[in-house]
Amino acid sequence: MAATGPRPYELIRRKRDGLELSAAEIAVLVDGFVSGAVPDYQMSAFLMAVFFRGMSAAEIATLTRAMRDSGETLDLSSFGGRTADKHSTGGVGDKVSLVLAPLAAAAGLVVPMMSGRGLGHTGGTIDKLESIPGFDTALSTDAFLRQLDQIGVAMVAQSDRLAPADRRMYALRDVTATVESIPLIAASIMSKKLAEGCDNLVLDVKFGRGAFMQKMVDAEALARTMTAIGNANGVRTRALLSSMEQPLGLALGNAVEVEETIACLRGAGPADLRELTLRLGAEMMLLAGVEASREAATARLARLLDDGSALERFRGMVVAQGGDPAYVDDPQRFYRPAVTLPVVSRARGVVAGIDTLEVGLTIVALGGGRARLYEPIRHEVGVLLNRKVGDEVDAGDVLAQVLAATSAAAGEAVQRLQAAIVISGALDAAGRGGQPPAATPFILDLPQRT
Amino acid sequence: MAATGPRPYELIRRKRDGLELSAAEIAVLVDGFVSGAVPDYQMSAFLMAVFFRGMSAAEIATLTRAMRDSGETLDLSSFGGRTADKHSTGGVGDKVSLVLAPLAAAAGLVVPMMSGRGLGHTGGTIDKLESIPGFDTALSTDAFLRQLDQIGVAMVAQSDRLAPADRRMYALRDVTATVESIPLIAASIMSKKLAEGCDNLVLDVKFGRGAFMQKMVDAEALARTMTAIGNANGVRTRALLSSMEQPLGLALGNAVEVEETIACLRGAGPADLRELTLRLGAEMMLLAGVEASREAATARLARLLDDGSALERFRGMVVAQGGDPAYVDDPQRFYRPAVTLPVVSRARGVVAGIDTLEVGLTIVALGGGRARLYEPIRHEVGVLLNRKVGDEVDAGDVLAQVLAATSAAAGEAVQRLQAAIVISGALDAAGRGGQPPAATPFILDLPQRT
Repeated sequence: MAATGPRPYELIRRKRDGLELSAAEIAVLVDGFVSGAVPDYQMSAFLMAVFFRGMSAAEIATLTRAMRDSGETLDLSSFGGRTADKHSTGGVGDKVSLVLAPLAAAAGLVVPMMSGRGLGHTGGTIDKLESIPGFDTALSTDAFLRQLDQIGVAMVAQSDRLAPADRRMYALRDVTATVESIPLIAASIMSKKLAEGCDNLVLDVKFGRGAFMQKMVDAEALARTMTAIGNANGVRTRALLSSMEQPLGLALGNAVEVEETIACLRGAGPADLRELTLRLGAEMMLLAGVEASREAATARLARLLDDGSALERFRGMVVAQGGDPAYVDDPQRFYRPAVTLPVVSRARGVVAGIDTLEVGLTIVALGGGRARLYEPIRHEVGVLLNRKVGDEVDAGDVLAQVLAATSAAAGEAVQRLQAAIVISGALDAAGRGGQPPAATPFILDLPQRT
Repeated sequence: MAATGPRPYELIRRKRDGLELSAAEIAVLVDGFVSGAVPDYQMSAFLMAVFFRGMSAAEIATLTRAMRDSGETLDLSSFGGRTADKHSTGGVGDKVSLVLAPLAAAAGLVVPMMSGRGLGHTGGTIDKLESIPGFDTALSTDAFLRQLDQIGVAMVAQSDRLAPADRRMYALRDVTATVESIPLIAASIMSKKLAEGCDNLVLDVKFGRGAFMQKMVDAEALARTMTAIGNANGVRTRALLSSMEQPLGLALGNAVEVEETIACLRGAGPADLRELTLRLGAEMMLLAGVEASREAATARLARLLDDGSALERFRGMVVAQGGDPAYVDDPQRFYRPAVTLPVVSRARGVVAGIDTLEVGLTIVALGGGRARLYEPIRHEVGVLLNRKVGDEVDAGDVLAQVLAATSAAAGEAVQRLQAAIVISGALDAAGRGGQPPAATPFILDLPQRT
């Protein structure tokens, strides 16, 4: 029964037994997996051992580098250190990238943003952008670099040529119950971000019911792990934590989120969306060294939203990438959902909570998201919230509007949302009483380690 | 990042999270793996999760049954409950099966023994038997049953048709560092034993430096797990623990072990070999209900060794399976190693320890064992010990003889054995002093749980 085998066997065994692997050993596994020398069944056993044993900071950094080096990497050095990107771990109603990328460009940064599509209950920036008629999210590298040089911002889909090891490892993790591992999640995200060649990176790590990491402690661990990977590999990286205890903004879906984006770029839109955008943008400017204080950076970004500069940059990007600029001026003209149904409150009280995961899954069921990669989506469907956590409501008030393709889908979504939006306590005639919602912070700096 | 996938994904995840799987769920995995519906990479992730999470007694019993039911099972019910087998977890110099099978048959039991080949540092009963010229270890099922009916004992190689799920799972475990898991080891061994259809089974679970389970606590856990599987599946099962802190007997190799077997069957041979054989045999008789007390069973077995009855049964088996009976009468005539070299003690003292693992690996290096399945072996090579733990030695005494195919191999083996046999302390002129060897028990009943 003596165990014999080639080198990968030893590396699995060492990880299984809690020993640390060297950079060369991790490269054997990743390179071997990509070349076929390390078969799927060895990689999946290794990944499960990582699930249980974790990885040291050094192991994670070298794993991420090995994954980055499995494919193309971009050289953005000609932009002199001014490139900055933002990555969010995903949520419901999170259209921050759409506002932030042109805003940061308007503030003098170069924003080479590569994003993913929606999967599961979380929406995807690329899906949202593609609701702008004609908008091309698959630029060639040359066109991408030229646009960055000309208008300082381009938003494209993450190329399959970046970090192919990550794509293969993710596909394996997805069928072997090894997704939920902070080292592996961090390496997966950061391998692509490192390949993009950006100088500065701000991470928006979500926590709460609608986030991939529901517990704040896990979100914090993921934020610290990704920040360490970036800084260990020459990318100035900072992270904020932000809440997904309720959706971000009021518009949830694809076309409606672009519409809300445009409102925000006009200096209007929901307060939470504006606040998170400004916080993340200020961090980008501080990292890139183009402003000295958070206050100055925030004030400048707010001005650029209010004076139309950011909107102009957005319009420039839409035109450069083949999109219809009329959409920017009057987005409501373009999509008209077949059915609109209200979600009506059955009680008087206070909105105590919104089950954000359930809201996200309801949008998937409406056709606005996808349960599996490469499924088509509908741009026109979604949910418009009228109330958010802490708002008072009366029986009969409209809590939300469902935008659907069919009456059946709309009816089902209304039922799900009625359960997902929790009205707590009764108000007396003077509007007093009701159960106050649990106080959860909206945005947090990464807490200092004690 | 929502994880989606077919049913096996859920089962991996549940095991990963420490939940218990039902019998039906375990059957999905095992049957699916054999049919190809569950790919290698999912099974290896599952096995690694089992490595970390373990399995409940119910899970192990159903896993073993599912593996048993993946292939043929033998029906031995015509023997009326008198069938009995012995399984050892493997060691160095362990030729007990060769003595015990004919001995138990001489005592009235029916012994349908199916054994494996040697792998790694442990020898295999089938390899040893095949050093008898002409001996056929691959009987048809009909021939096997007929021989059991006629002489009460047959010793054959475990058929590939028994528990094929185990063979495939073991091959995967061997390359994914998931061998060292007590539930998986127990299920692997017992799936084949259950398929053999025996009524009574005694387990000899080895502990110590030369055993697969080096720590006694692990050996005990394995013994309890296997005993529970057997008893939960209709096989009366008991286990003893026995030491592999030093080799069993004095002859180590293939032909020389058969020679020592024949000596033991003549009522001679090393005391430890005889003692362990009698202990295991007595348990078999008690389990099968053919003797009422351990003392009576032991006495009867000792008589059958001393009066030649067991040897006669062995000879009958050799003849029935095509072997040369002249080998039984004068085994030394058949093999003559090309080179014989002594291992000479460099010091005066006491044998404090024998690195049994290293001795086993030295025999593999001589060609007497194999590092990988299906490699050919040499029958004539091996090691003859002159001293065992606790024996006094003088400088210049011969500690062991190496039997080798070449001078180079012999020289290397002598060097390895010189290091493996530890002489401790110096004796004074009167032969006093020296470091006494650590007291380790030789045979232990499975301790009662407190």
